Amino acid sequence: MFYHDRELQYKVRVDKPNPVFARMLQQAIGGIEGEIRVCLQYLFQGWGSRGPQKYRNMLLETGTEEIAHIEMLATAVALNLEGAPMSVQDEFAKDKMVGAVLGGIDPRHVLSSGLAAMAVDANGVPFNGSWVVGSGNLAADMHANVMAEATGRVLATRLWEATDDPGMKDMLAFLIARDTMHQNQWLAVLEEIGGLAGAHPIPNSFPQSEENQNFNYSFVSTYIGNDTTEGGRWTSGPSIDGKGEFRVEKAQPLGGIPQLAPPEPRGHAQTEQMTATDAMLGTVADKVKGTLSGSGKGG
Amino acid sequence: MFYHDRELQYKVRVDKPNPVFARMLQQAIGGIEGEIRVCLQYLFQGWGSRGPQKYRNMLLETGTEEIAHIEMLATAVALNLEGAPMSVQDEFAKDKMVGAVLGGIDPRHVLSSGLAAMAVDANGVPFNGSWVVGSGNLAADMHANVMAEATGRVLATRLWEATDDPGMKDMLAFLIARDTMHQNQWLAVLEEIGGLAGAHPIPNSFPQSEENQNFNYSFVSTYIGNDTTEGGRWTSGPSIDGKGEFRVEKAQPLGGIPQLAPPEPRGHAQTEQMTATDAMLGTVADKVKGTLSGSGKGG
Amino acid sequence: MFYHDRELQYKVRVDKPNPVFARMLQQAIGGIEGEIRVCLQYLFQGWGSRGPQKYRNMLLETGTEEIAHIEMLATAVALNLEGAPMSVQDEFAKDKMVGAVLGGIDPRHVLSSGLAAMAVDANGVPFNGSWVVGSGNLAADMHANVMAEATGRVLATRLWEATDDPGMKDMLAFLIARDTMHQNQWLAVLEEIGGLAGAHPIPNSFPQSEENQNFNYSFVSTYIGNDTTEGGRWTSGPSIDGKGEFRVEKAQPLGGIPQLAPPEPRGHAQTEQMTATDAMLGTVADKVKGTLSGSGKGG
Amino acid sequence: MFYHDRELQYKVRVDKPNPVFARMLQQAIGGIEGEIRVCLQYLFQGWGSRGPQKYRNMLLETGTEEIAHIEMLATAVALNLEGAPMSVQDEFAKDKMVGAVLGGIDPRHVLSSGLAAMAVDANGVPFNGSWVVGSGNLAADMHANVMAEATGRVLATRLWEATDDPGMKDMLAFLIARDTMHQNQWLAVLEEIGGLAGAHPIPNSFPQSEENQNFNYSFVSTYIGNDTTEGGRWTSGPSIDGKGEFRVEKAQPLGGIPQLAPPEPRGHAQTEQMTATDAMLGTVADKVKGTLSGSGKGG
Amino acid sequence: MFYHDRELQYKVRVDKPNPVFARMLQQAIGGIEGEIRVCLQYLFQGWGSRGPQKYRNMLLETGTEEIAHIEMLATAVALNLEGAPMSVQDEFAKDKMVGAVLGGIDPRHVLSSGLAAMAVDANGVPFNGSWVVGSGNLAADMHANVMAEATGRVLATRLWEATDDPGMKDMLAFLIARDTMHQNQWLAVLEEIGGLAGAHPIPNSFPQSEENQNFNYSFVSTYIGNDTTEGGRWTSGPSIDGKGEFRVEKAQPLGGIPQLAPPEPRGHAQTEQMTATDAMLGTVADKVKGTLSGSGKGG
Amino acid sequence: MFYHDRELQYKVRVDKPNPVFARMLQQAIGGIEGEIRVCLQYLFQGWGSRGPQKYRNMLLETGTEEIAHIEMLATAVALNLEGAPMSVQDEFAKDKMVGAVLGGIDPRHVLSSGLAAMAVDANGVPFNGSWVVGSGNLAADMHANVMAEATGRVLATRLWEATDDPGMKDMLAFLIARDTMHQNQWLAVLEEIGGLAGAHPIPNSFPQSEENQNFNYSFVSTYIGNDTTEGGRWTSGPSIDGKGEFRVEKAQPLGGIPQLAPPEPRGHAQTEQMTATDAMLGTVADKVKGTLSGSGKGG
Repeated sequence: MFYHDRELQYKVRVDKPNPVFARMLQQAIGGIEGEIRVCLQYLFQGWGSRGPQKYRNMLLETGTEEIAHIEMLATAVALNLEGAPMSVQDEFAKDKMVGAVLGGIDPRHVLSSGLAAMAVDANGVPFNGSWVVGSGNLAADMHANVMAEATGRVLATRLWEATDDPGMKDMLAFLIARDTMHQNQWLAVLEEIGGLAGAHPIPNSFPQSEENQNFNYSFVSTYIGNDTTEGGRWTSGPSIDGKGEFRVEKAQPLGGIPQLAPPEPRGHAQTEQMTATDAMLGTVADKVKGTLSGSGKGG
Repeated sequence: MFYHDRELQYKVRVDKPNPVFARMLQQAIGGIEGEIRVCLQYLFQGWGSRGPQKYRNMLLETGTEEIAHIEMLATAVALNLEGAPMSVQDEFAKDKMVGAVLGGIDPRHVLSSGLAAMAVDANGVPFNGSWVVGSGNLAADMHANVMAEATGRVLATRLWEATDDPGMKDMLAFLIARDTMHQNQWLAVLEEIGGLAGAHPIPNSFPQSEENQNFNYSFVSTYIGNDTTEGGRWTSGPSIDGKGEFRVEKAQPLGGIPQLAPPEPRGHAQTEQMTATDAMLGTVADKVKGTLSGSGKGG
Repeated sequence: MFYHDRELQYKVRVDKPNPVFARMLQQAIGGIEGEIRVCLQYLFQGWGSRGPQKYRNMLLETGTEEIAHIEMLATAVALNLEGAPMSVQDEFAKDKMVGAVLGGIDPRHVLSSGLAAMAVDANGVPFNGSWVVGSGNLAADMHANVMAEATGRVLATRLWEATDDPGMKDMLAFLIARDTMHQNQWLAVLEEIGGLAGAHPIPNSFPQSEENQNFNYSFVSTYIGNDTTEGGRWTSGPSIDGKGEFRVEKAQPLGGIPQLAPPEPRGHAQTEQMTATDAMLGTVADKVKGTLSGSGKGG
Repeated sequence: MFYHDRELQYKVRVDKPNPVFARMLQQAIGGIEGEIRVCLQYLFQGWGSRGPQKYRNMLLETGTEEIAHIEMLATAVALNLEGAPMSVQDEFAKDKMVGAVLGGIDPRHVLSSGLAAMAVDANGVPFNGSWVVGSGNLAADMHANVMAEATGRVLATRLWEATDDPGMKDMLAFLIARDTMHQNQWLAVLEEIGGLAGAHPIPNSFPQSEENQNFNYSFVSTYIGNDTTEGGRWTSGPSIDGKGEFRVEKAQPLGGIPQLAPPEPRGHAQTEQMTATDAMLGTVADKVKGTLSGSGKGG
Repeated sequence: MFYHDRELQYKVRVDKPNPVFARMLQQAIGGIEGEIRVCLQYLFQGWGSRGPQKYRNMLLETGTEEIAHIEMLATAVALNLEGAPMSVQDEFAKDKMVGAVLGGIDPRHVLSSGLAAMAVDANGVPFNGSWVVGSGNLAADMHANVMAEATGRVLATRLWEATDDPGMKDMLAFLIARDTMHQNQWLAVLEEIGGLAGAHPIPNSFPQSEENQNFNYSFVSTYIGNDTTEGGRWTSGPSIDGKGEFRVEKAQPLGGIPQLAPPEPRGHAQTEQMTATDAMLGTVADKVKGTLSGSGKGG
Repeated sequence: MFYHDRELQYKVRVDKPNPVFARMLQQAIGGIEGEIRVCLQYLFQGWGSRGPQKYRNMLLETGTEEIAHIEMLATAVALNLEGAPMSVQDEFAKDKMVGAVLGGIDPRHVLSSGLAAMAVDANGVPFNGSWVVGSGNLAADMHANVMAEATGRVLATRLWEATDDPGMKDMLAFLIARDTMHQNQWLAVLEEIGGLAGAHPIPNSFPQSEENQNFNYSFVSTYIGNDTTEGGRWTSGPSIDGKGEFRVEKAQPLGGIPQLAPPEPRGHAQTEQMTATDAMLGTVADKVKGTLSGSGKGG
């Protein structure tokens, strides 16, 4: 269960409120790279954790920390919105700067939330629960977590670049540091459960003898050109999981042309789909030639 | 900021795991009446709270409690999923019961989460951030909270009826009790800030003299029948907010027929929209009569 | 503005309530082929109608009719849900039939709506406003409407096949008839504004001289095989709009290889993306060969 | 069933078209606080109404009125869009004002709808059917309706503040008045069915003896500080529903640490989840120490 | 299966990068009128095609072409984003033009994608799989395709008007031409399978004798005025499908007042819904008169 | 640009059609772990690729391969749906098995697609463009890709376990093998651009000196218990990126209590929020004590 303190995890100070930056910060709250996602992701992974207890404990610790990050960012949004323009009409006449700002703010910050943060991204698109990944496979989940912290840190550094407000830069420098730790943290779990070679291919509990042995370490080149694809680490040498040898194969169709049954009568396709053959259709096409186009002539 | 304990707020025991009930419980996690919604709603309201500090504090306290409820329900889902059928094919042959169960489970509990809870509702529809209501108006928000706890308690009582598992019934009896408190809690805030008459019409800071005085306390009857609408508390007597007198009016059009300008040429409507008048169209219609229908004759 | 009557447009009778059929009917309410979509689509098209007034009037008439269809279907859902199983547990033990039904119902009909219709489709996916198409171009909108009524009538005939309840079959026979009329109605508008040849290519107000004349009537064959694509009405002969001649061309790349600028430094791509050349990377790859795979060896 | 008139319920006049205000008005059409939501909510509640017939009738009357409000707002959007900038490029050069406007409009008003309203909110996020609440419990639904009208009236007063267009202010003064009535109307139903104390806890048909008696009237304080939570109407005194006495309790874990079973083998968690114990993992961690980090050294 | 070339289908050149136009182009990528939709729509229709093989082949050819269109537009977005403002703060001070631009760009182009295209529309609303229509009925699907290409071409012509960049105008002139062909192509299929009269009412495999014969060719007028609806092609004369005669009927309720059963006790409606009659409620209302409103008096 | 062949990449054979398995396969098509996601993800990453050209080429090759995987799975869905029950009513009476199947199928496979695949997941939730991750940072994107292939392979192995159809098992063994390669492929890119230590923290182009040095390698323990968190690879020793030393810190609030300004008057919070102080509210609470609860007494 959970407790809270009335103080923030780290100081949130806004020197020059900027409602356009408030909108940008929403991406770090309700966006796919944002803190609601990692918060729920770590908590749900912890709550559904099966196997050694220590990972459950650790996931819940960091999931709990992330709530504090949402809180910091929500506070930053509210502080950046103070003094935001509340009106469309008069401001335009009075002040070109305000007009410019007006274009860049989220109108729902004025209309819906009363100058406070919402559970949406920088475009007002609501947070979506589908982003909360927990597969029940610890290695897959750790990769999901590294990915979330990697895109999250990229986002935070871009926000850092987008502002010259010292308070905001200080807050972001803290969040960027936490993302550094969290990237390392999930990678550390991966190392603890066997490293990349031990963990891959994920899931490592599926017997590799059951997968198709002809296709599990070949780069399939779908490039239609005659020149060869340039080499890379993935075209030759031992595979990263240490269980195969990379090679290159030109894409080839091995599956034949699929044949579906005719339409089920109660599904009410068109009669022509159920009765006509390709050959007949040619004839039909001849017979009706010009009718639709002809119909237009009178138009 | 936030802390957690490794223990649950209240005991979660499943005597007879039932994966169909696990799916039903998802509604109380990721559904619009569920705990993720109230959790984020109270927290966001608290983080954006402007005015007296005590409401902020209280909202954060209860928002924090709700995280523990998500945790309890997520645990209940995982426990109900233990022993769930993992296969479509063989089970059908072996056991009619399993076949029946299979129809009722969320296939993503098997395929996506590895027998654990997800941030989705009972139909697998993801939690949606738009459900997190925080308007910046305390009275409007309290009504949003009462509504959330009212539909939430209705949901919980239906779940209570749907199961005969003693452990699940015990957990739900706890959650139902909490919903009772939370309904009362938000109503208590409403009372503290003036009661229904003091709070309504919400927002009470908008000068009522600016609203149209002819329509603010009349029930507009859109019923086309000649018999009168049956009376109710809302058709006569003093209004609930004590600021007007209910009355009934038959719906009447007062706004005339709207007239929009012709299409902007660069918006590329059809030429006919820009050039034809209604009168001309009649003529056109005569001229083209039968063409499209005629075209079909050859078909 | 709008009025209502307390009676339904057409009789809704359910002889044998079936909660699984109730779920199926939801597709005709809140699904993309359903009645909320056409209702809002015709109303929004009417409200935004620019050009001759008669189309506005007509769109609003039929949009208003569609509200009555939602009403009929919502009533049918409620009637089919009467007697639905409210419990997961005991029923299974008692009655295999109920177990089977339970798998097929929408659990939210029990949990969320209290045995009534919702604004969702047959899988509980909510109605989505993006389905409401109104482009401001009358011909495009008429095609959107024909398409909506075509997929709507296909849906209604499948529902008709799925039930043997005489009341439901009667209601569906009415709705199928209305779809017949509505398909014809939107096609009639297309005929009135010029027929297919007059209307196409939509928008017909864009000067065709501005479109690329080499590609506006050729079927581009992306098929990689050496045999020719079989002919059809679309490979030769006059185009349907009467303004070109169909022909076939093998797909060919005419656009060269795109070149984007290097990453903007403040966007924080990886350093390697900003500094390394393709040639350098080969060298790097050689140097690091085996490192990641090597790391796994210890795992 | 439903009828319509060609005239509006109330006059919609736009003196100075403003496409940025058009975008803001979309919130009142397709947003969660908007008119499509209340319209469908009241209609669906009416169509699913069980119990006394008078509430069904009343819900349908007001639901029908709301269609007229969508119509008014859609008209207002279209009128505000007349003269909107259709081009990105040249305008910038010519007119800084237009540039400012351009930033604030919904580009889909130009690109998708041809200067007309859409079923979306002020950020272009589509209306979502999940917002249509109808629980089958009359008291819960009335709270949902009060909440919708409360947030709706807050929105309308903010729109009123955002414009100085006399026509728009007049239209909004009408809509604000209707929201006043509708708030009172739903509260009047609550009074008629027993008042707050009679209705709460909702649902009042669930025997309170079945809910956990230790937690139904206590404010659970999750605050970790040593100082006591400040008092409020919700911390002592009789509960609002008159059935209990408020008290305060510090949050305490009563549920123990949850224990899930090990992963189901066919769910393919990692092997380590199925075989390792916490103790073993320590050893493994020792053995692999440095491997992942070591791997990087070569990079 | 599929192959690719590294070159584009047609040249993409941006003379003056414009990040606001980049945002607009997103509508043609991830919007409902965009290329991801038609691409997946034609491919899914092809993969599920039942009946004559030639339509499957043709659908896959054009579906494959559409991937190349997404590629062109994604390239155009990236090129238009080069030089986009990366910062909110300093730019405002330095340059009013940049401020204006800043309002109009999608902030996620800066924050999330690193100046590249995303699978979203012009408002950042993600592409939605529900837009991919494939009904299994060839005629319905062809109408869906005509509609997609009609709204798609309207969109493309509006984009063409919105820019004066020669490179962009050239690319759009190519895409507009392809939309011309594709409109004609799907109409050509309709002609081949019987023309409008042969195809309608869709599905033509449902026996029309089963539909309600009184309502299948009548325009139902829901207009409440006494004057008659103005005539149109749809009010008299032969129907477009050649199978009926248009006529006009005033809307009339034929369905009576629906009666639902009382609430199911285990669904926990309010007690009053289960026990009170309409008559009783009047009495109750009398008894409680003033209570809620009275409660406010103390506030 | 793109080409296609009429044959499949690999054979798709269904020995015993099973419509419940068809529904499960939808997860691998339109689910977040599915093939539409990886297809669009790799293509969009390729189209937006900045920096060395070889990664663009490689991403497009594999993105193109993934289209062929969607095709295979769509074919598998259609083949599994042949013979699916089309009716709710009669089947129940005749055959308990069919009843069981009916519960488990996606009703939209019958109602919407005519027994064909759709762009949705196993619960009918539409594919969502927000899942397409492309950050412009190559290392972050590679982690996103590893994660997608890891959860994708976990899904495929669960589907493999869920069926005993030899044809389906063979197809899945092929897809599982491809996921093995793709996991290795994206890891190989990571190795080529520096390995984990070279790449992390992502983005590696942000100067680490700017991040808060006190928090970038400490595990913040939010656990409220007195016992220490058990150690793991992430609590001591060198960090995985080789740039720091792991340590543990108890969570502490460093940010003080946030203070927002009072509500902006034009945002229309309640009057009490703007005028009352915390102290005053206590008094108010005393004065109004009992009013709301009193109101109920009359109910």
